[in-house]
Amino acid sequence: MIKGFRWAGGFMEHFVRLATQVMIPCQEEVLRDPVKSGAVDNFVRAAQVLRGERTPDSGDFTGMVFQDSDVYKWIEAAAYSLAYRPDDLLRKRVEDMVALVAASQERDGYLDTYFTLGNSDKKFTNLMEAHELYCAGHMIEAASALYESLGDDSLLKVAEKNAALLYKVFITEGREGFSGHPEIELALMRLRKSTGKEIYRELARHFIDVRGTDSDFFVKEEARRDWSVWGMDTKDKMYAQYHLPVREQKDAVGHSVRAMYLYTAMAMLAEADGDESLAEACFNLFDSVADRRMYITGGIGSTSKGEAFSADYDLPGDTAYAETCASVGLVFFCSALLKLKKDGRFADVMERALYNTVLSGISADGRSFFYVNPLEVSKEFTGKTPGSMHVKITRQEWFGCACCPPNAARLLSSVSSYAWEEDEGVLYSHLFVSGTVKTDSMSVNSVTDYPFGDSVTYRIERGSGKLAVRLPSFSSEDFSLSCPYELKDGYMYCEVKEGDEILLRLSMEPVMNRADPRVSYAAGRVSVSVGPLVYCIEDADNTDISALCLKPGKLHRSSAEPSSLGLPPAAADLGKVFTVEADGMRLIPSDTDRLYFTRYDEEPCKVTLIPYFLWANRSPGSMKVWIPLL
Amino acid sequence: MIKGFRWAGGFMEHFVRLATQVMIPCQEEVLRDPVKSGAVDNFVRAAQVLRGERTPDSGDFTGMVFQDSDVYKWIEAAAYSLAYRPDDLLRKRVEDMVALVAASQERDGYLDTYFTLGNSDKKFTNLMEAHELYCAGHMIEAASALYESLGDDSLLKVAEKNAALLYKVFITEGREGFSGHPEIELALMRLRKSTGKEIYRELARHFIDVRGTDSDFFVKEEARRDWSVWGMDTKDKMYAQYHLPVREQKDAVGHSVRAMYLYTAMAMLAEADGDESLAEACFNLFDSVADRRMYITGGIGSTSKGEAFSADYDLPGDTAYAETCASVGLVFFCSALLKLKKDGRFADVMERALYNTVLSGISADGRSFFYVNPLEVSKEFTGKTPGSMHVKITRQEWFGCACCPPNAARLLSSVSSYAWEEDEGVLYSHLFVSGTVKTDSMSVNSVTDYPFGDSVTYRIERGSGKLAVRLPSFSSEDFSLSCPYELKDGYMYCEVKEGDEILLRLSMEPVMNRADPRVSYAAGRVSVSVGPLVYCIEDADNTDISALCLKPGKLHRSSAEPSSLGLPPAAADLGKVFTVEADGMRLIPSDTDRLYFTRYDEEPCKVTLIPYFLWANRSPGSMKVWIPLL
Repeated sequence: MIKGFRWAGGFMEHFVRLATQVMIPCQEEVLRDPVKSGAVDNFVRAAQVLRGERTPDSGDFTGMVFQDSDVYKWIEAAAYSLAYRPDDLLRKRVEDMVALVAASQERDGYLDTYFTLGNSDKKFTNLMEAHELYCAGHMIEAASALYESLGDDSLLKVAEKNAALLYKVFITEGREGFSGHPEIELALMRLRKSTGKEIYRELARHFIDVRGTDSDFFVKEEARRDWSVWGMDTKDKMYAQYHLPVREQKDAVGHSVRAMYLYTAMAMLAEADGDESLAEACFNLFDSVADRRMYITGGIGSTSKGEAFSADYDLPGDTAYAETCASVGLVFFCSALLKLKKDGRFADVMERALYNTVLSGISADGRSFFYVNPLEVSKEFTGKTPGSMHVKITRQEWFGCACCPPNAARLLSSVSSYAWEEDEGVLYSHLFVSGTVKTDSMSVNSVTDYPFGDSVTYRIERGSGKLAVRLPSFSSEDFSLSCPYELKDGYMYCEVKEGDEILLRLSMEPVMNRADPRVSYAAGRVSVSVGPLVYCIEDADNTDISALCLKPGKLHRSSAEPSSLGLPPAAADLGKVFTVEADGMRLIPSDTDRLYFTRYDEEPCKVTLIPYFLWANRSPGSMKVWIPLL
Repeated sequence: MIKGFRWAGGFMEHFVRLATQVMIPCQEEVLRDPVKSGAVDNFVRAAQVLRGERTPDSGDFTGMVFQDSDVYKWIEAAAYSLAYRPDDLLRKRVEDMVALVAASQERDGYLDTYFTLGNSDKKFTNLMEAHELYCAGHMIEAASALYESLGDDSLLKVAEKNAALLYKVFITEGREGFSGHPEIELALMRLRKSTGKEIYRELARHFIDVRGTDSDFFVKEEARRDWSVWGMDTKDKMYAQYHLPVREQKDAVGHSVRAMYLYTAMAMLAEADGDESLAEACFNLFDSVADRRMYITGGIGSTSKGEAFSADYDLPGDTAYAETCASVGLVFFCSALLKLKKDGRFADVMERALYNTVLSGISADGRSFFYVNPLEVSKEFTGKTPGSMHVKITRQEWFGCACCPPNAARLLSSVSSYAWEEDEGVLYSHLFVSGTVKTDSMSVNSVTDYPFGDSVTYRIERGSGKLAVRLPSFSSEDFSLSCPYELKDGYMYCEVKEGDEILLRLSMEPVMNRADPRVSYAAGRVSVSVGPLVYCIEDADNTDISALCLKPGKLHRSSAEPSSLGLPPAAADLGKVFTVEADGMRLIPSDTDRLYFTRYDEEPCKVTLIPYFLWANRSPGSMKVWIPLL
């Protein structure tokens, strides 16, 4: 097991710092703001109700039915942040927040301010829409994070009391049903890991196994209840992945965040149970995502209709949904898959989602966010045409549905746990980061300027054993490792001992990617990438990008200071950034007044591309990932 | 004025025959079918109500609120058909249908079976949704068509009585409002032409002038009424073009069929009134359509959301709406513009819409129809992805909203009237057809195998005068005319006299078109056309079209018998068809399991393209107009 990781600079620590220093304090401010969020106020009022100081009144609840989860995600992120960098003031504020949550827990363990505030009679009657088990899951995750990161069991007690209630209701008393929005399942698996108690695995297994066995469950539930949150269509069974028992699900369908949380829990349970049929389902679902339903940026859920997966290869760039949370969830899923099976494909996709869509979801200064991550915007009509009404050209400070900002914060503040894994005596280097990792048997220091640099140096500071270094697929034909190794499924396994210094060199040459021809949107276009980073063109570096085409030919990497690119001061911390310079052509119609033409001039020009994750950090303008080839 | 036209074969007469021999009788059958349509039954029942044989009951009405218009469009088409080819049996059936309509007219001139059948109290209270004036308009058009084509004034009397009622209600009594769906305006302009009575122009002018002067009119109307048809959003003022007074409208917006019918009426009124500000608005709206909002196929209204225009350059091919009726309406608009100003641009667009989208709306055998005319379909996911739920891969026999089939029938059966025009002593040849046209001063015979041939021969059989031959823009740099001419705005004006034989030769070389780079969908793609015909690739002629790319280079025309292409027997009548053969490349990913890749093989292959209007006449498969260039 990983005993700890100490950061030592580099690209990814920049984002850990951003989460710690900017995102977490800023987000706390919003959560405490009664107008912008009201999430903390809901707990304040619920606690007052439980203390008898307030009459329950459903009008007292503010925000989305799952508003509580914003607070839980914030606590989780703050726990990781405190483990990364102790901060007495933040610690105190976390303790206050936990106390507030604990005070909002009902005597029997129930905890959900929406219901405590005047909706008590509706508990567990609308599992489809009401996000009760979802909120419980996020509370449990926060509790596990606090306990695992800081040894603080204050919230864990609340979580166990809540989980005991859920066990009683759904196992002992046999209440039917499962959550419309998966989350409780993976949370219970985490709680089992934190506490060692198998009843939580049993309850997680129950929720996973029962899903889809009666695909009419929510239709019947709807008939039984006399209230609804949004009037969701319970007959759209794929939306919340209850169309089939989970082991029979082969295509990633429905709401993409729901899908990722469910699949993550399935992978965790498959690993814990050694359940091969469940593992097989997870692998099939991964293939569905990675081989047929994922943007090159690791964005998933291509349609705004239901924030959902569409059909295979239906991946339009300009009308993309690609919610930030869905890519956060994809990182979770890939990480859980890696625990199940060591296959570099899972790490490749994890890295793709993390380095592109998750990071593009956050502004360079950490203060604003994308919910939707398009692969093309036009300042003339994005957000105006019927297909792109959901697409924004600039990041927003907050959202009515504020799932993404704290989700990104909790992932980034804990990103080292996705980088390293110890399994059966082997230390796996999944993601390339700078710092020192400790296991029972070894301490390994890694130094890298990845992804803008091409090498990673591993020094074995203590002990000996097996080190497995990931070989990213983008570099599979041009790399070197300075020690003997055995390559298997994208990992190079080496025997190492104290004092060894191992150098990994990867290919960071810019390349042009094509998409499967069935991706209609990308026909005739290419996308540039360097290592794990997808690149894009923006107005800020180029004139009128709508008419820009790339020419087949060599691409050049060029080092730049973030400030010289006009990026905000906060990005200076990245140190250096690589742009890509390419030979391009500007298409100049012979008659500019006409929509269609047979003759045009081609004007050679230089094209500058920047990493996709940095887009929309300068003046608002057009952007494109897939660029036509002339 | 054109005194008559006698067809003499050729491409376009094939479609006149198809309308006459197949579409009109088939459609009559459907209209008389109580299950498939019920449109005729509505009249039967309304007449019974008026004769006191039936109690009014709104449950007796079948179909859409505008179901009556299907019958009127059929009468109109049948009138043209009878003028083309007398047919006593059809004549009798038309007379019966007119008698039924007349019997459904209320004593005061009111005529709308939806209202007569139990909704009398709602008359004129929901002009936004209820299509009363729209249905009246189609009835008036049918009446004018019967009178102009056959001298039959039986329906004209009904129409005049109805129009007199409308005049009384909206002018004399001063009722506020205008039709949510334009149509009455252009119909009144036709009625004025048929009868010479200026009150109809006055009423048309009133409806046109009042539109948009109070953009809240329908919001207020909605507040006043206690019923609705569909609960339309009256605040979406662009949808029915009442956001601005018509003279201030510059962008083609909203429901595309509504837009076309309104603009057509505006152009007709501008011509009749010599109204320059109205003419200017028409020209601006035409530019908006033709230069920024029209598919290369002449399809308009790119979004399924409201069957509407989207933003400039938002012209995705795979999620296109491009309703057949909208292109029928675009033909009307262009024809009306030509009467206002002789500019070949209007005829170019008219021809583009007619030869591509209107004809693609009809199967080769005339028995099934497209409502939606996409520029790309994939048999794997068209009609399944959220963006293409409205797109069909095969034509349908009929529709719940059956506006398109009879609209195509009335246009095709009268298509000669769009081909020729006489204005101020000049005979204009707008479209190239084979036959003999007569005016007061001349008879001119034209012979052509256009659009598959490249020449038109005009013989002056009688008289002398000025002939203006259109020079299509696709041929503006490679053509010849065998007589002296003066070229102005796309027309070649020549002095001709009896016995002259003039030969026009056009360029029918296949060309590759590009779209304005702002059309994101078409980036990196080209579309092939030959003369007015846009071409496409289909599965029937090529293997796996998703991976096919064109190479820059020469395109070859190749003559084929329709039967040798596997087209149904009905297409044999077209005589010969040109396919285009091109050099292409098949993109073969190096690893077929992966969605994105940097290496691939290119396999040279032949690509066969067929005219777009013929697509979907063989086994259902994929189709593409815009083809990636490799």
